[in-house]
Amino acid sequence: MNEDDRRLLEMKNTSELMLDLAYSSLIYQNKVIAKEVIELEDRVDRLHEAIIRSALGKSKEPKNFDRSLIMIKISDSIERIADAALDIADVVLRDIELHPVVKKSLEDSDVVIQKHVVENGSLLHGKTLGEIKLATETGVWVIAIRRGYDWIYGPDEGTTISGGDILYARGPADSEKIIAPWIKGK
Amino acid sequence: MNEDDRRLLEMKNTSELMLDLAYSSLIYQNKVIAKEVIELEDRVDRLHEAIIRSALGKSKEPKNFDRSLIMIKISDSIERIADAALDIADVVLRDIELHPVVKKSLEDSDVVIQKHVVENGSLLHGKTLGEIKLATETGVWVIAIRRGYDWIYGPDEGTTISGGDILYARGPADSEKIIAPWIKGK
Repeated sequence: MNEDDRRLLEMKNTSELMLDLAYSSLIYQNKVIAKEVIELEDRVDRLHEAIIRSALGKSKEPKNFDRSLIMIKISDSIERIADAALDIADVVLRDIELHPVVKKSLEDSDVVIQKHVVENGSLLHGKTLGEIKLATETGVWVIAIRRGYDWIYGPDEGTTISGGDILYARGPADSEKIIAPWIKGK
Repeated sequence: MNEDDRRLLEMKNTSELMLDLAYSSLIYQNKVIAKEVIELEDRVDRLHEAIIRSALGKSKEPKNFDRSLIMIKISDSIERIADAALDIADVVLRDIELHPVVKKSLEDSDVVIQKHVVENGSLLHGKTLGEIKLATETGVWVIAIRRGYDWIYGPDEGTTISGGDILYARGPADSEKIIAPWIKGK
């Protein structure tokens, strides 16, 4: 996978996470999650610009022209998805007092997006998701991990969890309690 | 759930399905799936207009003003997500010969969106998803069902499958063969 492919895939993954977080921030009236959306949008903007710059550079060669055109079109569409997620989060940041009325419109299941901080010395620290079978044991499915300034989207069985990681996960509304023993240090 | 809540939730679900289908149409160079996206966009537009009409009607009462404002903002964001999905599908419909180059950018896993037609007299006909345990047995997870002009988004264990249903499902790339015995009539 070349650099442009990697950028486009990261844009797609980031925009999907932004939508998940934006809807969750709305449903749970959570300004902290809404602010994460704003931060992620900045990342999408930078990737979008990098893709356009690269496409312009490569388009000088006629054989690359059509590919450059398509890369810009797709990147632009993803950028607009990210913008829409941002606007949803913006409603939460501006109009938080108005939410209970919209909350129930979008809450169609008991599945929620949760944010968990993994403590050093916890059961998860130093283990892969495959080893601990978190999804099977708790019903909580990790969709992204924030590690400092980095993000890991769609972690798989081989992804190792460390103390300090912030897990974004999908799970039943009551899973906060279930997951606590896994992420708390001893 | 009132009529506006139902409309907003249907817009959200439809826009999510459109994105799934749009990316799949791009990755698999599939014009049939790209055309489904266009059809779904029409549905989103109609819901969006119905939400605005309702919000305008209700906003005459001062107590409803803020709710109307938020409903329009969220509905507008979702409409723009649907538009972005449409633009991605449009690349497939216009520029299909150019795709192999973009395909690999977005294909980050072996999971694909599939479309399966359930035949009358097949194992699935007349059974609920809970009874047949399709996901457990095949690894194929039904995300939406098209039944004539209607769509069922996020079907659950209690959803009954009928001959003629079109299943949109997420599953491993090789699951076409695995699911065939379940959907073919005898």
